[in-house]
Amino acid sequence: MLNIGVVGCGYWGNHILRNFNSSENWNLVIACDKEQSQINKVKSLYLNTRFTLDFNDILNDPNIDAIAISTPVSSHFELAKATLLAGKHAWVEKPLTSTKEESEELIEIASSKNLILNVDHTFIYTSSVQKIKNLIDSNDLGDILYFDSVRINLGLFQHDVNVIWDLAPHDISIIQYCIGKKPIAVNATGAGLVKYGLKNLENIAYVTIHFDDWSIAHLHLNWLSPVKVRKIIIGGTKKMLVFDDMEQSEKLKIYDSGVKVTSRDDIYDALVQYRIGDMYSPSIGNKEALKEEVEHFYQCILNGQHTITDGEAGLYVVKILEAANESIRLNGEKIKII
Amino acid sequence: MLNIGVVGCGYWGNHILRNFNSSENWNLVIACDKEQSQINKVKSLYLNTRFTLDFNDILNDPNIDAIAISTPVSSHFELAKATLLAGKHAWVEKPLTSTKEESEELIEIASSKNLILNVDHTFIYTSSVQKIKNLIDSNDLGDILYFDSVRINLGLFQHDVNVIWDLAPHDISIIQYCIGKKPIAVNATGAGLVKYGLKNLENIAYVTIHFDDWSIAHLHLNWLSPVKVRKIIIGGTKKMLVFDDMEQSEKLKIYDSGVKVTSRDDIYDALVQYRIGDMYSPSIGNKEALKEEVEHFYQCILNGQHTITDGEAGLYVVKILEAANESIRLNGEKIKII
Amino acid sequence: MLNIGVVGCGYWGNHILRNFNSSENWNLVIACDKEQSQINKVKSLYLNTRFTLDFNDILNDPNIDAIAISTPVSSHFELAKATLLAGKHAWVEKPLTSTKEESEELIEIASSKNLILNVDHTFIYTSSVQKIKNLIDSNDLGDILYFDSVRINLGLFQHDVNVIWDLAPHDISIIQYCIGKKPIAVNATGAGLVKYGLKNLENIAYVTIHFDDWSIAHLHLNWLSPVKVRKIIIGGTKKMLVFDDMEQSEKLKIYDSGVKVTSRDDIYDALVQYRIGDMYSPSIGNKEALKEEVEHFYQCILNGQHTITDGEAGLYVVKILEAANESIRLNGEKIKII
Amino acid sequence: MLNIGVVGCGYWGNHILRNFNSSENWNLVIACDKEQSQINKVKSLYLNTRFTLDFNDILNDPNIDAIAISTPVSSHFELAKATLLAGKHAWVEKPLTSTKEESEELIEIASSKNLILNVDHTFIYTSSVQKIKNLIDSNDLGDILYFDSVRINLGLFQHDVNVIWDLAPHDISIIQYCIGKKPIAVNATGAGLVKYGLKNLENIAYVTIHFDDWSIAHLHLNWLSPVKVRKIIIGGTKKMLVFDDMEQSEKLKIYDSGVKVTSRDDIYDALVQYRIGDMYSPSIGNKEALKEEVEHFYQCILNGQHTITDGEAGLYVVKILEAANESIRLNGEKIKII
Repeated sequence: MLNIGVVGCGYWGNHILRNFNSSENWNLVIACDKEQSQINKVKSLYLNTRFTLDFNDILNDPNIDAIAISTPVSSHFELAKATLLAGKHAWVEKPLTSTKEESEELIEIASSKNLILNVDHTFIYTSSVQKIKNLIDSNDLGDILYFDSVRINLGLFQHDVNVIWDLAPHDISIIQYCIGKKPIAVNATGAGLVKYGLKNLENIAYVTIHFDDWSIAHLHLNWLSPVKVRKIIIGGTKKMLVFDDMEQSEKLKIYDSGVKVTSRDDIYDALVQYRIGDMYSPSIGNKEALKEEVEHFYQCILNGQHTITDGEAGLYVVKILEAANESIRLNGEKIKII
Repeated sequence: MLNIGVVGCGYWGNHILRNFNSSENWNLVIACDKEQSQINKVKSLYLNTRFTLDFNDILNDPNIDAIAISTPVSSHFELAKATLLAGKHAWVEKPLTSTKEESEELIEIASSKNLILNVDHTFIYTSSVQKIKNLIDSNDLGDILYFDSVRINLGLFQHDVNVIWDLAPHDISIIQYCIGKKPIAVNATGAGLVKYGLKNLENIAYVTIHFDDWSIAHLHLNWLSPVKVRKIIIGGTKKMLVFDDMEQSEKLKIYDSGVKVTSRDDIYDALVQYRIGDMYSPSIGNKEALKEEVEHFYQCILNGQHTITDGEAGLYVVKILEAANESIRLNGEKIKII
Repeated sequence: MLNIGVVGCGYWGNHILRNFNSSENWNLVIACDKEQSQINKVKSLYLNTRFTLDFNDILNDPNIDAIAISTPVSSHFELAKATLLAGKHAWVEKPLTSTKEESEELIEIASSKNLILNVDHTFIYTSSVQKIKNLIDSNDLGDILYFDSVRINLGLFQHDVNVIWDLAPHDISIIQYCIGKKPIAVNATGAGLVKYGLKNLENIAYVTIHFDDWSIAHLHLNWLSPVKVRKIIIGGTKKMLVFDDMEQSEKLKIYDSGVKVTSRDDIYDALVQYRIGDMYSPSIGNKEALKEEVEHFYQCILNGQHTITDGEAGLYVVKILEAANESIRLNGEKIKII
Repeated sequence: MLNIGVVGCGYWGNHILRNFNSSENWNLVIACDKEQSQINKVKSLYLNTRFTLDFNDILNDPNIDAIAISTPVSSHFELAKATLLAGKHAWVEKPLTSTKEESEELIEIASSKNLILNVDHTFIYTSSVQKIKNLIDSNDLGDILYFDSVRINLGLFQHDVNVIWDLAPHDISIIQYCIGKKPIAVNATGAGLVKYGLKNLENIAYVTIHFDDWSIAHLHLNWLSPVKVRKIIIGGTKKMLVFDDMEQSEKLKIYDSGVKVTSRDDIYDALVQYRIGDMYSPSIGNKEALKEEVEHFYQCILNGQHTITDGEAGLYVVKILEAANESIRLNGEKIKII
């Protein structure tokens, strides 16, 4: 068994506490939060866990093997860096850091000290995303032409980040994990339609990602929609997939439909033909993603292997988030990703 | 009764023929098409109508009051200009012309000769769009914050225009008619994912329109989707509307939901509150839009009034289409609309 | 080519006229209706067809090979009998007759005179029902355990028959064609909730059909539903099927789900296990059913073969309709079918 | 605060434990189950609660004010009777008892000893059902013409009761609470399509309930459906309601649609006209029903008032369940309810 400390006992922190606590591979030894009120809300549920207001109580505990960080984005870098420098494995809530340089530094430290750096891209551990990865890896869909996501709702406005940094990590991590193409540039537009706070953060945004093979991805992110939509379409040369996460069953539908270009003798008169075939919806499991991730983190520490949501995956996401913000600042200009 | 001539007997031309033929206010006197085969397909249905291969047979017929033009976009300007110069009222399929200069010239000629120039933005005449116009005009939705449209399907690839020019006129004409804000700039991205023809036209595109009050519209246009989606969300400060044209009933849903910013003393801690209220779906009629348009065209000619889809409406659409193409050419750069 | 005469030019009669008229195998020679106003509505569409008020004009025309009867149920027997006795093939709208004795008499006459008697169970000719027949015949579903249909809407009240006779023939003809089991008894309940006419006919009814292998079918028929539902579930021992005819695509869904009884050593503790597998939705064609039926009728006349919706199929439906009415009259008592 | 004891720690018992435990008005003093394994599963969650194998430990504890019984139906009567005779208030899982005589006896004992007898018709405490009750009481729907429920899924087969006793109590309790009409007779059909156990219990059943004003209710209950459906339609003379409990939002839809009979001079030619009006979907709360029920039980004990799901409500349900079983035994015959 390994010993875990948790930083941040808010909404998501509480899910992290619950899953580490119920795991047979982990001891939930200690947890901290800057607000006593947050601690009071949860401590009765974890009677064998110490609670503290001071992060250093975790950092300086030599029994702690790993620290899970569930705090606002702006504090991720500092906390994760301290964790790794203290020789402990790090689990960091998404997005990994506020800048790509910070992500790169964390990756380097983890690597040099042989520590596991896991980014909590929880969605990757759902049965749905695992199935999508599977379908793409086995070439069922053929080459991927486009990825289109709509992730909108009447949402919890964040005070520190805009709608892109709040919602897009889900989609970008899916793109990174399932499709894995190299992003070369980003365009983004958006607006702060409801004014609040000092920063006039965007509440609605549209992001286009260009890959090195000219295929594209697009994200619609919106905190101001009357209906909640979680829908991804992935178009392949062989088949096309629709993932509707609001469905209670039949979340994934694969369409044996597509387009075929024929008679290219006279290129201008090339016929574009349509093929409408069967649809099928695979039965997928119903495991709790976070529980899967907690066990995977344990196994990777034991085996000295990267998690499937490692620092590089986190960096991939941060690069695109940064470029999207930059594109909005420059009126939608195409921002290269280096 | 007025006498109409129709140019172009293809798919849409046939609907135009049928509606002018069944109107009690119009004589369908003559129709032409460059292909005898097209004429042969339809002529048995219109036994009292002359069919010809030569547009001049219509143009030179002094009995003809108006000409309806249903041909490829590139020919609209020439045919409509000839029509107006011959002193006949013009009905032109959408989009009005290939360039905004051409649209402006047609508007000017029509104006100077007191002729009606109608652009066939058929969608405007549907009961659904009339109801949306109504709801916005009566301030039921409050100020409009955003307009988001998804118009995708496994579609008929066009050989002369890209997916924006094919599908976006529907949405832009709705924006022009229902919201009527002044567009000031456009960003667009897209890709020709399936290569065909000489031009590598975009099969998928995303267009953001910026208005002079900082609200925005966004269109997702796609010929490569396995599922057909026709869904528009309009977010207002008071209520929000979803128009799903694929529903057989309950196409329009109005949500009494929204966001309210309170306690702005300390601006950073402003609370953004959510209001989830009732939804209602108004019963809307089921009239054929094209039939409504044919009668409206007749009345406007009689009364010397502009149609609700006049040259200015057509110009509004063409300006945005042109800017979208220009933005794609310039890698998504924001293109001003003058 | 064969010569057809049509009796009854109302709503459905008009569809029959259109399909015989557009067939290359049929001459639509003559049509009659008792109301001149009905004739006036349609005659301009069939310029080569004679229209008459007198059925005898059709009956006595030696050139007529077959007569299609689309009149109220109560007149079917008399008209069809006269047709067959005149040596002409008969096409009769569903349900075949008002009593099973009448159906039996028509079957006998047709048989003795080697004439084709076709009952217009149009639904059987849809691509959906053909696909269902296919799936059942190939044993994809296994043994059929139950058939459940909901066929409800805010409907056109009939003045001569109740909701069972109006709507159930669709379902019963599907049961007869696709499942083909022998019905042995019927229970039915219902109510005339909206009073009108002299007969207080049922506007809502529920019918249970018992087959000779103890499997069952159930129909919910309702003219008073605010929503239109056309949904059939067929439960098999291997797979289960849902046919939702209100869907624009994906009308048929086949679920690889079911129940398995295991460990029967101790019968009381037998475990009933659930299997939730993949779902698939086959692509089905989009042919007009009535057009298919018109061609099939022609082929069967040429080849001297029964249609797939012959007199026996019609009799199957009438027997169950009669028993359902009888069961309602006797407070839901189980009525044997002989 | 009042002291509660709980009998039965299975699936539903656990929900009862949780809600009494988290209530500020109740002390969860003691709980029992006949199986130590069931106790072991839950006892760590309730550290201040005594667990026992012996019901008498609860019954004989003078501090216990009320006992909640969550055991198989066949034991309800005995346990509830002992509870009431011991002078404690009783909470009994649905259905109240196996026979109407038993229910009547419990009602009488509770009455004579001034004790509260609550039947756990949990559904009644959902926001949806409360809203339906409201709409009917305020005459928004007009007179109720029919109630139609479909409650089907690939379900947990029960070994002691058939599908009617398992699923119908939900619907019948809604009918009792919201509509409140007097049932006068029941017809039912059904089949044990999957054979298991000694009793060949029905896995699929259809129940028609007749009320004293000739309106009707119908239930479709099925453990063998590949899709889960929870849909109720209530037809009123003014409006009609659809309650789809599988929807995540918009569970309730009210249709301003209906039928109107006019021109009754000549009764046979009465016109039945259709009115299709707006639909609206009220926003409803999201409270946990069981929590509401636990607080209501407390208040009713304090005030000496019947709960809204009292013994009479339980008797109403049991009478119809008994009649339905009797009707199936007698081949669907109409069974009077006395």
